[in-house]
Amino acid sequence: MTYDPQAVLSTAAVLSTAIDTYIEQHMDESIAELSRLCAQPSVAAQNWGMAECAGLVVGMLKQRGFTVEVIPTQGAPVVFAERKGRSSKTLLFYNHYDVQPPEPLELWETPPFEPTLRQGKLYARGVSDDKSHITSRLLAIDALLAVDGELPCGVKFAIEGEEEVSSLHLKDFVKDNVERLQADACIWEFGGVNHEDTPIQHTGLRGICYVELSVQTASQDVHSGLGGSIFPNAAWRLVWALSTLKGPDERIRLPGHYDNVRPPSARDLELMSTLADASDEYKSRYGIQEFLHGLTGGLELRIAKAFQPTCTICGLTAGYQGPGSKTVLPARASAKVDFRLVPDQTPEQVLTALRQHLDAEGFSDVQIEFLGGEAPARTDPDDPFIKAVVDAALPVYGKPMQVVPMNSGSGPNHIFAHYLNVPIATAGLGYPGAQIHAPNENIRLDLYQKGAQHIARVLKAFA
Amino acid sequence: MTYDPQAVLSTAAVLSTAIDTYIEQHMDESIAELSRLCAQPSVAAQNWGMAECAGLVVGMLKQRGFTVEVIPTQGAPVVFAERKGRSSKTLLFYNHYDVQPPEPLELWETPPFEPTLRQGKLYARGVSDDKSHITSRLLAIDALLAVDGELPCGVKFAIEGEEEVSSLHLKDFVKDNVERLQADACIWEFGGVNHEDTPIQHTGLRGICYVELSVQTASQDVHSGLGGSIFPNAAWRLVWALSTLKGPDERIRLPGHYDNVRPPSARDLELMSTLADASDEYKSRYGIQEFLHGLTGGLELRIAKAFQPTCTICGLTAGYQGPGSKTVLPARASAKVDFRLVPDQTPEQVLTALRQHLDAEGFSDVQIEFLGGEAPARTDPDDPFIKAVVDAALPVYGKPMQVVPMNSGSGPNHIFAHYLNVPIATAGLGYPGAQIHAPNENIRLDLYQKGAQHIARVLKAFA
Repeated sequence: MTYDPQAVLSTAAVLSTAIDTYIEQHMDESIAELSRLCAQPSVAAQNWGMAECAGLVVGMLKQRGFTVEVIPTQGAPVVFAERKGRSSKTLLFYNHYDVQPPEPLELWETPPFEPTLRQGKLYARGVSDDKSHITSRLLAIDALLAVDGELPCGVKFAIEGEEEVSSLHLKDFVKDNVERLQADACIWEFGGVNHEDTPIQHTGLRGICYVELSVQTASQDVHSGLGGSIFPNAAWRLVWALSTLKGPDERIRLPGHYDNVRPPSARDLELMSTLADASDEYKSRYGIQEFLHGLTGGLELRIAKAFQPTCTICGLTAGYQGPGSKTVLPARASAKVDFRLVPDQTPEQVLTALRQHLDAEGFSDVQIEFLGGEAPARTDPDDPFIKAVVDAALPVYGKPMQVVPMNSGSGPNHIFAHYLNVPIATAGLGYPGAQIHAPNENIRLDLYQKGAQHIARVLKAFA
Repeated sequence: MTYDPQAVLSTAAVLSTAIDTYIEQHMDESIAELSRLCAQPSVAAQNWGMAECAGLVVGMLKQRGFTVEVIPTQGAPVVFAERKGRSSKTLLFYNHYDVQPPEPLELWETPPFEPTLRQGKLYARGVSDDKSHITSRLLAIDALLAVDGELPCGVKFAIEGEEEVSSLHLKDFVKDNVERLQADACIWEFGGVNHEDTPIQHTGLRGICYVELSVQTASQDVHSGLGGSIFPNAAWRLVWALSTLKGPDERIRLPGHYDNVRPPSARDLELMSTLADASDEYKSRYGIQEFLHGLTGGLELRIAKAFQPTCTICGLTAGYQGPGSKTVLPARASAKVDFRLVPDQTPEQVLTALRQHLDAEGFSDVQIEFLGGEAPARTDPDDPFIKAVVDAALPVYGKPMQVVPMNSGSGPNHIFAHYLNVPIATAGLGYPGAQIHAPNENIRLDLYQKGAQHIARVLKAFA
């Protein structure tokens, strides 16, 4: 990464003044469009409003002259759109129109599906993840069409409806539509700045294997006075089974789980070492007292965050959960568990090892339901496309974009990297306070504008 | 227990014909009264309808000429009632007007607070535990007043509103009202027949210590992709803490937990050995595949059921519990846990040991909230009052009542035994299909009638 920020800055700034101005002047219309999109619930996990939301997205793309298809899958449909441009090159945008469940509702300051502007931020479920990314890319396209009369290159959108449920049917969709999706590069669904407002480029994502573990020990709940001494208890079975997966040392005990883990390379460490320390930010934002493994910050914390496999309990359910006491022995108990995977782990390997492990530990009564997964994937941080996206950020953000070789989150980028063989870069408008997957999800309007301006530059540079 | 069932049968049958007939002829009125009581929710854990239900009970007692007081406590009030009788002796009835929470609502065939008659059974939350016991005792009193013009002995009622939340304030109430409550013997709130329709006399109850364990590791839920590798997870902390309390060997690991456990006496074993085997009944009713400890039935299963301390997870809560997946790292997790206690364990001892244990195991971050408790207590199974209650059952049920020296359930009988120094017997209309604490709670009307006829005989015999 040797380049002269000042040189890039002056060139890019001159090139894009008219487009920047268009975007600035059309922010209100774009935010209004985004608000309409966010007012439409589209909770994939609850199959709530999916077709309606896909329909809204279709309308928005058609307005910009795209040829649009709604392609059915075994689950929610994918919205696919295409428009030619001046050059023969094609840039593919991957986005998703589904959102996380809004619960717990009582912690939202304003209702999750009533988008609300407060102090330069727009609040709504899905506003950051991922609906603002769809509309800000459209704002960039509006500006290019208005100023130049055409797009600098061909543009395709693949906007799925199951990203928040582990992209259950995306792999089949991509395999079946390799020709349609063919492109020279891909912009991923997210991106943004860190807690110091430095733009970040993520060139890799961890994989995921999401399961529900459940135990049923009786046909109905039993009075705990009757059964406590002699009946099996589903909640105890679940607790004991879970406690064999990982202990307080955080080492995941599935057989062979670490065999395929590739440690970060020298180049990874070099890139990671230049990043800002976010430990104080995490502590104050999330009320964390201490990090795991006795980590206190710095490179070690960043490496642990992104380059380690995880096993996270995302939810626990059994018996009585209301106020006060109820003396009941639960017939059923379940846990939602996600395993984050690093290269070269796979979801298939986790599922096989999990069954083996539970059986070996005496928990063949614990059922495993696979709720979705995807393998980890990376793009070379020194790929020319990555460099183009990084360079385009400088004039917008006024400081160099930093390259993070591995992001701790997950997404189906492996499918695109593997079947379409494209380099994948991130670009977007996230920030650490965005509360994605949590109550009071929001975006900053200043970053929304910058995100659109960055994408316009990426399209020009890439063409 | 050497007596001649036939001799008792003939004498008792002759004595009570008119009263039996009155009860039989007034069943419809009594069931209507019970239905009114059950239509009034009185969920102590949710503080729902308590005053209204107490008011209904007051009205019913006043109708029978009782002097009634509603005595406030720090929680729900106690309804205390008194009426003199022919003899100077006084029998005290302990009952409760509160009920368990009705959840899970979706498993009820008819709504829990809309009492419904189906095939000789009345369904409603609290109909068996404990509202039918209140009205069936009143039916017995109606019969005695109608036939004899007066009660054979003095009768007192202490009807509390917090039995289902571990009788949080009953101890203070009894201590403050020892004079008022003074009696020669006490009839407990429940009783009934086993799966062979044999009436059962329970002369002891286990104690209980009910706690909520909770952990908070962050100020808000976190995206599991961000925090999975480096943030503490409340659900994991809870699972690990719970797994130190008891393993699959079912041995409770609190320090000194078994030190004060008194094993069953030779007389206990003798009484327990005569009881019917309920193992097949449990398996078919509750869909149990196997009992704990490799037990298959017989005396060993009965001893384990009632004479062992337990540690039961009654509920688990953390993170996302809806359909599908949500990738979230829970900031808070909690478990409801009940410890059943046998003589001479105490709730205080459990609370102290639990804190010590969690601290020693590295879980000082796990908070303990005490939700209620009571010590175990027993009446001598050969006490003359027990014999009177047992004898009175024979003509009603047509077979001898069996004495169970220890019931596996709990109740605040220790408070009465300790502060009032009275022998305590059980008498009632429960049966194994009553579904108490579960959806579709119900009573059998034939047992309701028998329960009233038994109580009428007990009052006459005791006088």
